[in-house]
Amino acid sequence: MALGDMIVVERNEQGIAQVLEILRNAFGDRFQTGNSIREQHGHTTTYLPNQMPDGVVFPENTEEVQTIVRACAAHRVPLIPFGTGTSLEGHVNAPGGGISLDTSRMNRILAVHAEDLDCVVEPGVTREDLNRHLRDTGLFFPIDPGANASLGGMASTRASGTNAVRYGTMREAVLSLKAVMADGEVVRTAGRARKSSAGYDLTRLLVGAEGTLGVITELTLRLHGIPQAISGGVCPFPTLEAACQAVIATIQMGIPVARIELVNALQMKAINTYSKLDYPESPCLFLEFHGSDAGVAEQAELFAMIAEEQQGGPFMWTTVAEERNKLWKARHDSYWASFVLRPGAKGLSTDVCLPISRLAECVAETEADIEANGLVAPIVGHAGDGNFHTLVLMDPEDRDEVAKVEAFVARLNERAIAMEGTCTGEHGIGQGKSGFMRREHGHGVDVMRTIKKALDRDNIFNPGKMIAG
Amino acid sequence: MALGDMIVVERNEQGIAQVLEILRNAFGDRFQTGNSIREQHGHTTTYLPNQMPDGVVFPENTEEVQTIVRACAAHRVPLIPFGTGTSLEGHVNAPGGGISLDTSRMNRILAVHAEDLDCVVEPGVTREDLNRHLRDTGLFFPIDPGANASLGGMASTRASGTNAVRYGTMREAVLSLKAVMADGEVVRTAGRARKSSAGYDLTRLLVGAEGTLGVITELTLRLHGIPQAISGGVCPFPTLEAACQAVIATIQMGIPVARIELVNALQMKAINTYSKLDYPESPCLFLEFHGSDAGVAEQAELFAMIAEEQQGGPFMWTTVAEERNKLWKARHDSYWASFVLRPGAKGLSTDVCLPISRLAECVAETEADIEANGLVAPIVGHAGDGNFHTLVLMDPEDRDEVAKVEAFVARLNERAIAMEGTCTGEHGIGQGKSGFMRREHGHGVDVMRTIKKALDRDNIFNPGKMIAG
Repeated sequence: MALGDMIVVERNEQGIAQVLEILRNAFGDRFQTGNSIREQHGHTTTYLPNQMPDGVVFPENTEEVQTIVRACAAHRVPLIPFGTGTSLEGHVNAPGGGISLDTSRMNRILAVHAEDLDCVVEPGVTREDLNRHLRDTGLFFPIDPGANASLGGMASTRASGTNAVRYGTMREAVLSLKAVMADGEVVRTAGRARKSSAGYDLTRLLVGAEGTLGVITELTLRLHGIPQAISGGVCPFPTLEAACQAVIATIQMGIPVARIELVNALQMKAINTYSKLDYPESPCLFLEFHGSDAGVAEQAELFAMIAEEQQGGPFMWTTVAEERNKLWKARHDSYWASFVLRPGAKGLSTDVCLPISRLAECVAETEADIEANGLVAPIVGHAGDGNFHTLVLMDPEDRDEVAKVEAFVARLNERAIAMEGTCTGEHGIGQGKSGFMRREHGHGVDVMRTIKKALDRDNIFNPGKMIAG
Repeated sequence: MALGDMIVVERNEQGIAQVLEILRNAFGDRFQTGNSIREQHGHTTTYLPNQMPDGVVFPENTEEVQTIVRACAAHRVPLIPFGTGTSLEGHVNAPGGGISLDTSRMNRILAVHAEDLDCVVEPGVTREDLNRHLRDTGLFFPIDPGANASLGGMASTRASGTNAVRYGTMREAVLSLKAVMADGEVVRTAGRARKSSAGYDLTRLLVGAEGTLGVITELTLRLHGIPQAISGGVCPFPTLEAACQAVIATIQMGIPVARIELVNALQMKAINTYSKLDYPESPCLFLEFHGSDAGVAEQAELFAMIAEEQQGGPFMWTTVAEERNKLWKARHDSYWASFVLRPGAKGLSTDVCLPISRLAECVAETEADIEANGLVAPIVGHAGDGNFHTLVLMDPEDRDEVAKVEAFVARLNERAIAMEGTCTGEHGIGQGKSGFMRREHGHGVDVMRTIKKALDRDNIFNPGKMIAG
């Protein structure tokens, strides 16, 4: 598989023309076809080429989404849900043209049920919007993929991020969804009960479906109480292996760590340069603990002992919010920081996830592979989940380099799958990883295709993504 | 909907005869057609009538399951996976006859990955078998539905039980499944990574599918470290309302309670009589806390304060294993204890689950309904999840009584669904609740039927269950 091997989607010119006409009449200036807005609604985040939709529509409620879906279904025109466009795998590209459904006007927080620790939101609400809204309730929404993504988009890619090790991913965070299916009908996948054994788990089927099965128009999300106390800090290690062993020991001892992030030496250098910091430029773990005052101190001290056993440390930790925020801002900026290592380059982010026992081995082999091939590719990882990213900095115009990067990515994904892992822990398949689905899922791909075909016969929802063959 | 309104499944006599012949030849005395074994493989747990399969086959591995599936598929004969037969909703009944696939010989524990906190088992392994096997590893499998059910059966009904409030349900516990689909092909739904964004969540689609989409032949399950310390106890309350308010406060404060079980006054009376105990015969909470020595004491003391605020208490708690075991044995025996209230009766267990804020209201209305209709029906609940059971004791031969119980169950399920809950938190739909699917899921039932039809065109897998219309 080559990175450029996208799934081809034929353009249906006649259908597109008809849908443009319908949406223009129905949505007035909430339907736009200008070049810049169309380009902005194609993929803009990585080296993947931009593929513009033919128009962008801004619905304000479920009924309007039904109108759009019915128009696209009647004329067999692609419909691509759009949140904030922060996908790293080309999810919002329009390889066969069609309509981008921008959810930014569906941004109401419909209910906060503090007693039930849940809330109901529209898909265009971003995670930062939600947490701002919750500020005075003592509750928060924990899933944090770095970017200020929309919650609809986060559900669609089964996103997670730095604190999934404690709070889970969007798989666990979504209690229920409302969605418009290809027949234009609305499904509500569940009530608000914490658990249910009533029928197929349609919630979990739509979470991670990347907009290929329906358009999410409402989400019921689990919330958590803001912890009484938070402690955190950075801990250097002599080797990556030692850092990974400390992670395994922490998880095995049942320390309820909220965040445990692996950053390799090269990435530490980039962070220091970009954020003007002076952390040790060796492999480090960034940690955070949530709990009672006594609890977070106990957790931090337990971890310090674990680190020492691995010749790591000193583990400098603090409960002072300002210092912790500085630390996590640096960690979150690491994507952008990486570009100081090769100014002007485009980035390709990998996203393998493994059983944690294989993490050290996989990271070490990957570092060796990067070095052997002369690539510039710092590493950060959500180590508690066995998930790590390399950001390969490349010149997409240099064919030889692209070929080398393609081969590297293929080896990395193969390595992870062979270790019983996955090619994507949290970014999704989109266009960029569709070529690895067969290797990872075998006959499962046929099952997925059967489901897709049964629920979206004419392949109108986000065609050209996820299932390649 | 009446409780007797089962989905009718036509018998395919010719196909059944052919499959009996095939299995007899292929499995020898691991295929049985004697009356008593067939009856034992129909439903035997509740008032639901027994419907025998035509034969029972005991495969020993995935390949043998493929042989059986292919035979049933070729001749359009029902295939009903069987674990230990503890379903409360008639899941193992054979309304159109066919083959019961007994997984009891697929009972190997294939791997324990201590570093990754997971294990790989065959579906016939029971949860007690697994925990016995894990005893020396410092790990345990937490999901505990009471019965010593098979893990394949627990996955199929999305089971949970008393400590789901802390450790989640089978939805969270299953990392990956191997299953034989209707085309006879094997699917492995995922690797062993903690999280993945690679394609549709086939794991969660099969968990809770009640054997209607495929036959599970292998499960990868998450394990947890045995907590350093455990505390627990029983706390009486003046009213059910007060007990439920204490539960809400406990969850909201983020106390990581491992078990928080509601038992009403009538059930306490049954428990005392059956287990020769002298607990207060008022509404009670049974609690358990897991953590460090200091942690479990802190949690128990915090809860005691919450209880006091609700005029509850005294909360007598202990860390002594023997006393705790006595307490939980009494709680787990409550199903059988109930029958002392009406010896010779048959039981019907309800299973609604609600947003926790509605729990007190729903339990109170249900108690009033029970009293107004002169029913004998004690209540126990997994209160931390908003899930509670009534065990209605009835004479299934008394038509008037059956009608009265049917109307009661319909009102209870309607009450829960109207409160944004579900008619089943953990038992599944099976035959007993299929009539409530449309009310609970609306158009979602059509989506489920579309999926079922796409993946099992000839409806061979457990027909007559779950989706009625």
